[in-house]
Parts: sequence; C-alpha cells; structure tokens
Amino acid sequence: MVDAEIVAIGSELLLGGAADTNSLFLADELLKLGIEVRYKTVVGDLPKDIEAVLLHAFERARIVITTGGLGPTEDDLTRKVVARVTGRRLVLHNDALAAITHRLAARGRPVTAEQTTQALIPHRAHILQNPVGIAPGFFLMRDDRGVMCLPGVPSEMRRMFSEGGAGCLEPLAGGALHGSLLRRRLRTFGLTESEVDSRLRDLYRAEPNVVLGLQAGEEGVDVSITVRARHVDSAQSTMKRVERAVRDRMGHALYAVGSQTMEGVLALQLKARRLTVTVAESCTGGLVSQRLTSIPGSSSYFKRGYVVYSNKSKVEMLKISGTLLNEKGAVSREVVTAMAEAVRARGNTDLGVAVTGIAGPSGGTKEKPVGLVFWAVADKKQTLWLSQIFGGDREGIRRRASQAVLDMLRRYLSGKPVVE
Amino acid sequence: MVDAEIVAIGSELLLGGAADTNSLFLADELLKLGIEVRYKTVVGDLPKDIEAVLLHAFERARIVITTGGLGPTEDDLTRKVVARVTGRRLVLHNDALAAITHRLAARGRPVTAEQTTQALIPHRAHILQNPVGIAPGFFLMRDDRGVMCLPGVPSEMRRMFSEGGAGCLEPLAGGALHGSLLRRRLRTFGLTESEVDSRLRDLYRAEPNVVLGLQAGEEGVDVSITVRARHVDSAQSTMKRVERAVRDRMGHALYAVGSQTMEGVLALQLKARRLTVTVAESCTGGLVSQRLTSIPGSSSYFKRGYVVYSNKSKVEMLKISGTLLNEKGAVSREVVTAMAEAVRARGNTDLGVAVTGIAGPSGGTKEKPVGLVFWAVADKKQTLWLSQIFGGDREGIRRRASQAVLDMLRRYLSGKPVVE
Repeated sequence: MVDAEIVAIGSELLLGGAADTNSLFLADELLKLGIEVRYKTVVGDLPKDIEAVLLHAFERARIVITTGGLGPTEDDLTRKVVARVTGRRLVLHNDALAAITHRLAARGRPVTAEQTTQALIPHRAHILQNPVGIAPGFFLMRDDRGVMCLPGVPSEMRRMFSEGGAGCLEPLAGGALHGSLLRRRLRTFGLTESEVDSRLRDLYRAEPNVVLGLQAGEEGVDVSITVRARHVDSAQSTMKRVERAVRDRMGHALYAVGSQTMEGVLALQLKARRLTVTVAESCTGGLVSQRLTSIPGSSSYFKRGYVVYSNKSKVEMLKISGTLLNEKGAVSREVVTAMAEAVRARGNTDLGVAVTGIAGPSGGTKEKPVGLVFWAVADKKQTLWLSQIFGGDREGIRRRASQAVLDMLRRYLSGKPVVE
Repeated sequence: MVDAEIVAIGSELLLGGAADTNSLFLADELLKLGIEVRYKTVVGDLPKDIEAVLLHAFERARIVITTGGLGPTEDDLTRKVVARVTGRRLVLHNDALAAITHRLAARGRPVTAEQTTQALIPHRAHILQNPVGIAPGFFLMRDDRGVMCLPGVPSEMRRMFSEGGAGCLEPLAGGALHGSLLRRRLRTFGLTESEVDSRLRDLYRAEPNVVLGLQAGEEGVDVSITVRARHVDSAQSTMKRVERAVRDRMGHALYAVGSQTMEGVLALQLKARRLTVTVAESCTGGLVSQRLTSIPGSSSYFKRGYVVYSNKSKVEMLKISGTLLNEKGAVSREVVTAMAEAVRARGNTDLGVAVTGIAGPSGGTKEKPVGLVFWAVADKKQTLWLSQIFGGDREGIRRRASQAVLDMLRRYLSGKPVVE
C-alpha cells in the first residue's frame, strides 16, 4: 500500500468551530485506488505553519493532498506555500484563467483582480478543473512525492477529485504490487459496546492480518474490519470469511453495512414491501419524520407526520384521551401505543409509529427520569412498544431515541423480534 | 500564547467514516485558558504511527492533548504509547481501579480483566476522573511539555476536561504574559460569500494584528475575527472595534455570535416576546420543527407541527383547497401562504410558519426546478412569503431551506425587513 497524508488548511478548522469532513470522502476514495491514509493534519492560515506541515508530510507519506486555501481572499495561501515547498514559481495559467472568466460570465459577473490570483498555479502543475465552482485545483510531483491541492468546499472538492484528481494518482498508487488493504464497516444497534466486544473477542487474534475495531455512538456500535494482504484476492476472501463470522455474532443487531444508514435500510424495506407509514412524535420534535424523508423517493412510503409536542396537541390532533394523559402521563406505554394506533388510522397507512419521552434537561422526576422514552409500532393487528432510559444530553437523547424507533420498525419489517 | 496540538487517535477517524469533532470543543476551551491550538492530527491504531506523531507534536507544541484509545479493547493503545514516549512505566493505579469498580457496580456489573487494564496509568501521572464513563484520563509532564490523555467519547471527554483537565493546564498556560489571542465568530445569513467579502474588503488590511476569515456553508456565511496582541486589554479593545465595524457592514444579515445557532436565537426572541408558533412543512419533512424543539424549554413557544408531505395530507390536515393545489401546484406562493395561515389557525398560535419545495433529486421541471422552495410567516394581520432556488444535494437543499425559514422568522420577530 502507498501511504497518504491529508492536510486540511484553514484557521476556521482549528478554532472556528468547523470540523474537517472532506477527509472522510478522500480516505474512502483513496482506499479504492490502493492508497492508505495514514495521517490527517489540520493547520491554520499561517504560511510558516503550512510550510512546516507540508515538509513533514513529504517525509512520511508518498502522496499529500491538501484541501482549502484556494479561494481569492487574503487568507488563501495554499498556492503560494505549495509553490515554495516544491521549488516552483507561480505562473498565470491561461486555461485556468479562461475557465474562471467563463464560469463568472455564466453568473453574469466580471472577473475581479482577486479572482485572477486563482489562476496563479505552480509552474508545470497539472490543472484540475472545478466543474461546480471558481478556483481550479492542481497536481504536481516533488521528487517521487505527489501533491494535490483541492478546494475546501466539499461539493467542489468531491467533483474535482472524482473527475480529474483520482486519475492523476493512479500511476503512483501501484495497485496490487504494493499489497492490498480492505476495510468494511458493519453497523449494529441494540447491543452495548461491551456486549459487542465480548461477542467478538475470540476473533480479535484469530487472523494475523485482520484488525477489528469498535466505535460506539448515537447510532449504535459500528464494527470495522480491516484486512491487509499481499494480493487483493486473498484480502477479499479473508474479508468474506471474517465478515461472515462477525455477522453471525451480531445477529439481528446488524442493520447496515458501510455508509448505509438506518433510514436508508428502512426506505428499501418499505419500498420493497409497498408499505406506508405515519409518524407521531413528541420528544423527538420532527426528527423521525425528517430522517424518514431524507431518502430520495420517500414520498412512496411517507405521507405525513404529526409533531404532537404539547398535551393539548395530542388531544386535538390525535384524539388521545385527556383522561389517559392525566392518569398515565404523556410519557407512558398507554399513551405511546394510543398515539401509534391513532396516527395509523388518521394517516390511513399500513403502519403507525410513535415516540414520547423526556429529552431534558428539565422535566424529569424520580419515577420518570430525563432520558426515559417510550416508542411503538402499530399495524392492523397489533401494537408493539418498547421503553428505555437513554443517556446523553438533550440532542443525544433525541438522536438515540430516533434511532431506536427506526430500528424497531426495521426489525418489525424483517419479521425479527424487536429486541435482542 | 502557548501552543497546543490535539492528536485524535483511532483508525475509525482515518478510514471508518467518522470525523473528529472533539477538537472543536477543546480548541474553544483551550483558547479561554490562553492556549492556541496550532495543529490537529489524526492517527490510526498503529503503535509506531502514534509514537511518531506524539514525538513530532512534542517538537512543535508545548501542550499535547490526545483523545481516544483509552478503552478496554485490543486497539486502545494510548496508555501504552504515552508511557513509552514519556519514559515512564505503566502502574496499576488503585484509586482509578476503585473508581472503575464503583462505576461498573452501579450498573450491576463486575469488573472484567480487560477493564482493569484501564487503571494502568503512566507512573506519577495525575489521574482525571471520568464522571460519566469508565476509563479515567490522565495528565503528565515530559520535560517542559504537558501531555493530557482524554477519552474519545465526546460526552466523557467534555466532562473530564471541564472538571479536571482544564485546571491541570492553567500553570502551563501563562495567561497574559505570553500575549493574547482572541477569536470571535459572527454569523450571517442572506448574503453570498462574495457579497460578504466585498463589504469587508477595506477591513482586511486595516489593522496589522487582525485577521478576518470567511466560511460559507449551509447555515450562511460566518465571519471570524482573530486578534493578536501583547496584552489582553489591547486585544479586547481591538476586538471590540473590529467587531463593531463588521457588524455595521453585515447589518440585518448578522444573526448570531460564536457557537450560537439560528434556533437558539429564535428561542430567545420567542420566549422574550411570549409568542407561540405552529409549523407546516413539506420538503423539509420535519427539520424545521426538529430545529425549533432542539432548544431546552422549547415547549413554551412550540406546541405542534404538521409534516404535510403528500398533497392529500395538505388537504386533509390543513384543509388546503384541492383546486388551489391543482391550479398552482404544491410548490407555489399561493399554497405556502395558505399553509402558514392554516397552521396558525389550527395551532391557535400567534404565528404560522410554512415551507414547501422540491428537494430532489427528481421531481423538478423547467418552470419549477429542483431546489425551488417557497416559505412563509403568517401573523394575525399579514402573511409574508419568500422564494429561492437553493443549490446542493437533497439534504443540502433541505438544510438551506430550513435555515431560510428560521431566518425569515428571526427577521420578522426583530421588526426588520425579511430580505436584504
């Protein structure tokens, strides 16, 4: 495998409250080319810091990819610093300038002096066109090291890398000659990290070229399998074997693979079975509906949702009995099942889904603490419900609750028990 | 200023599709102590890579903070590697073990052999208790450099840093002696990045110790102001002056400061004026309601929301005229204003808010392309509406649309014009 380092440039990534997410996409794409990201670095808009980071990156990685700092403003320094560390001068690139002029003209705008600086590119660098933005990127070699400079705006970075960047790296990647590394993520919900860990323990040392990693979060526990091998064939057969073993141990808790999400899996299930669903949510405030409608084509299974936040809205919108609300409380098995049944009827759909709970930070009692959530799925014949006390802050509780609701629906649709 | 480097440890952060967000919190907190994060590095679970990264960090930063790799599993290597690079041996720390045992007992669980490894801490390190999880963290010195190891789970990391970690760093921070760096983020919505840039251009070089940075995203354009000065007093007075100048140029587009969000600002406005709001949303599928209810205490202004995704649901839930829907289309000025007025009446609230649009990727036409969104705010006397074609993918369009809806409500509540 060939090593790469991704360098994200921009003070806003150090102190401004923004996370570098470009590197997630790049790491995946590079792996497909047989290039392994070994390091990611974030550095601010100080020329000497950027220079030091790039020089260090050249020492430990064959391929260095920068994101950010290609814009027209004062703090866009990438072109200058890369020219310096690669010992090239900046030259005005006519094709790049023409592309910038053309793109701005299409938006009815002239080229400003600042924008022409974006066509100043290190001498003899290979230009990468920007199909969705203004600033071009570029690629060049420094001795046997490759450096590629991409914009920081994620949509521009992605298109530029896919349409021009990846091709530049192929000659460096070396493919199967340098060995193969495969990675796969299996996503589980319903087990704690310790439970997943103990189910997998005998696999940790079973194969020398396999590494298993766990990551626990609001969407459950993800198991990552990394396989290294000399040849891609043996890597693939090892991956297949290990994946089967992990799947066996995870059972129904396994809900998705790779970058698939719970809502994506549900969309496939609902579409395949031509089922429709209506949602009633209290503590999640719209999150369950939002997730179900985040998938293209969701209108085939999702028609409407009710955000019944106040007790009055539960009575008025869903005709939940005021007596029931008073006697059992809004956060109760009785109310959540009544909600699921009511929205199924009102929406005239195959299924009704409901969730109610205490997201906090206030509103908890000894009997009903912050984090207590009830949720339910109703069909024509039955209504199933579950309840749990979730940890985390308000947003964490809401996200965990939404995941639990969707997971219950997933298990119901698979004909599996709704709990482990 | 004292320099710091944050090192995030974990292969899932390199290749597993997870972004490091811990460093956002840490950078903010460190700045309050007078410590500037100059570099962030992400490294996988390979001992020699972690070791190399830590050694390099000690060269360029006075304070090194690691996150992750403190758990009980095979790939939790931080304790071991930090002991090695600081030349200390790992010893079983009795207080740490007692705390681990106690926390597990509270959950009705015994301590496993793997979990006791979490009490193996470099000799004479200062232990940092974990108030919400199992693994303790620690702090120690390596010559004149400080290294602090925190867990990777964000909620644990935050509590541990705030309740024990920050205090350990104060003696190293040095405060005003080392000069002062202040940073402030002003958030705008409704202007393009170029518009913000041209309004600020004369300020870029006006003060030698001031750096202005722009970041454009789905929530608008953020302007960051960084001020460096020898003394905190002069930094503060410069910041005050520059912030005033930026505010003047941004006008009504400025909606928040620092980590404040649009929904947070709206919550304050609605609570202060004791107003209530009902939401009807189509293309955003619950996102507007979810954002409005994400603020603690939102039940004082938000009572209910309608996710009217299908045309039928608009007719049945809001009594929008079927003729109107047929003649004007669901994505139209006429329908969005009718929706806002209908939910205001049904919810019996001061305000009604509505949004309808084409989130894509399909469903667009020449007259009504993907990205076209209408939104409206209704009060007792009038209904205001706006429309725009948003760029981006499905989720990007939905998020931009939700921000535009909330921004309109913000401007309405401030008595300002709803557009620039």
